[in-house]
Amino acid sequence: MMEPGSVAVFGLGLIGGSIARDLSAQGVRVLGYDKDTESLRQALDDGSVDLAIDATSDHLKEAEIVILAVPVDIATDLLISIAPRLEGARLVTDVGSTKTAIARIADECGLADRFIGSHPLCGDHRSGYSASRRGLFRDAKVFFCPPASASANAISLTEGLWARLGAHSISTAPEEHDHMMAWVSHLPQVTANALALALEQAGFARDDLGPGGLEMTRLAGSPPEVWSAILRENRDHAVSAITELIVQLERLRAQIAGADDQAIRDSLRHSRDWAMSHIPCKGDPDTRR
Amino acid sequence: MMEPGSVAVFGLGLIGGSIARDLSAQGVRVLGYDKDTESLRQALDDGSVDLAIDATSDHLKEAEIVILAVPVDIATDLLISIAPRLEGARLVTDVGSTKTAIARIADECGLADRFIGSHPLCGDHRSGYSASRRGLFRDAKVFFCPPASASANAISLTEGLWARLGAHSISTAPEEHDHMMAWVSHLPQVTANALALALEQAGFARDDLGPGGLEMTRLAGSPPEVWSAILRENRDHAVSAITELIVQLERLRAQIAGADDQAIRDSLRHSRDWAMSHIPCKGDPDTRR
Repeated sequence: MMEPGSVAVFGLGLIGGSIARDLSAQGVRVLGYDKDTESLRQALDDGSVDLAIDATSDHLKEAEIVILAVPVDIATDLLISIAPRLEGARLVTDVGSTKTAIARIADECGLADRFIGSHPLCGDHRSGYSASRRGLFRDAKVFFCPPASASANAISLTEGLWARLGAHSISTAPEEHDHMMAWVSHLPQVTANALALALEQAGFARDDLGPGGLEMTRLAGSPPEVWSAILRENRDHAVSAITELIVQLERLRAQIAGADDQAIRDSLRHSRDWAMSHIPCKGDPDTRR
Repeated sequence: MMEPGSVAVFGLGLIGGSIARDLSAQGVRVLGYDKDTESLRQALDDGSVDLAIDATSDHLKEAEIVILAVPVDIATDLLISIAPRLEGARLVTDVGSTKTAIARIADECGLADRFIGSHPLCGDHRSGYSASRRGLFRDAKVFFCPPASASANAISLTEGLWARLGAHSISTAPEEHDHMMAWVSHLPQVTANALALALEQAGFARDDLGPGGLEMTRLAGSPPEVWSAILRENRDHAVSAITELIVQLERLRAQIAGADDQAIRDSLRHSRDWAMSHIPCKGDPDTRR
């Protein structure tokens, strides 16, 4: 793996902070920015960031890799404002959950050869620099979405970056990525939110839940700003996914209301067979006791 | 805590098997039954059960406490068939997720003074004797539902039984219990099933999910026989709860479809505030990294 020169990280939250921690521990020079000055100070203090920068900083030219680790709606604005200062960058990437819109903006900014969006699947409901940690990406899945115009060098830098952080990277087209994410990530998130709102509406507190209910509502604590931006940006796919969930809930409700034992059993068996086809791996919820 | 005489356990699955393991380890004589002869043989071999019995067994008279740890629909039939042989029992209890129907049957069987239904909140998607383990009930919440006719002795035996297993027991009326469970337990279960069915419908496998999605579908692997019986028995409450979830999903879908950023944010903030009001304790999903 080639040693990258300086890496600029915008946003030192769970994802950006964890990237800065891992890279700096490997001896990579990290330029860092966070709108929260306290987070930035902490990252400088603990050595995860070598130099504080901002969007207008001249030092930005020194960065070989630029990583945008801010909510998806802020990432697009940020990309537009820093694009003129990215002449030294050989790779510009982000870590957001939607990839179509930012790829289009990058293209408009003249970065079509050097912008490759990334999406590490390791967010959780905690956020901020205090939640970031070494090794967050170890064995995580990371999607990356090179446009047809991406340089071979930018692709290999992307693969090298995530390999360096211990993740498994998988190349996919931006549109395909966004369609898939609506189902495998955005739908589970919205489901947790809706379940939380339904329970609150009925007068129950989260403390009233057993382990299964707690598990099913943990994601409801995810950061609203991050998720409202994702859901707005990926709205067509998200709406289709929510609709299918409603259809399935209506079917189950009809089976239960009709006390149709055979139909309920068949649905639950079907659902169990699907769930059990997953081979649990280390650290995933199925292996926890 | 008084040492109970013999305890009979019908059903040596996750719950019944764990009860047998804990009680026998404490020196209590355990009479056990399971329709699966292999499970019963294992429990005899490892000493969790001292004597194999069945519903027609004369030894049933020796049991001071009788515990029905079988699915809720089977528990009612079983109770009817063993009732004539329970003259020695000072407490008859079960561990099912619904409490209204079995309390009515117990009353009809002339057990109104000695039947007190229990409901430990520690099921998970694993089942069978192989999933049972020592210490399953440690720090778990257990609801118990004494009818007005329950003897003081039966109540104190119930409290003693669960205290002996390390659980916190909470007294509640059967109807109130079933209403609450529809929301805090049955709704999260059905939500996981519906989410699994929606994802399968869209062509995704469980292996396609990240950690959040895996967590949100783990319960979909729960045993169909157990849950179809619970949902059928508690259908009115379950249907109301599912309806409220559909209402919340429809609201979120409308906000997302309309790209109403402020409304989406408000909903997610509301949901997060509710989720964060929970104080995580040891072993609950919020504390896992």
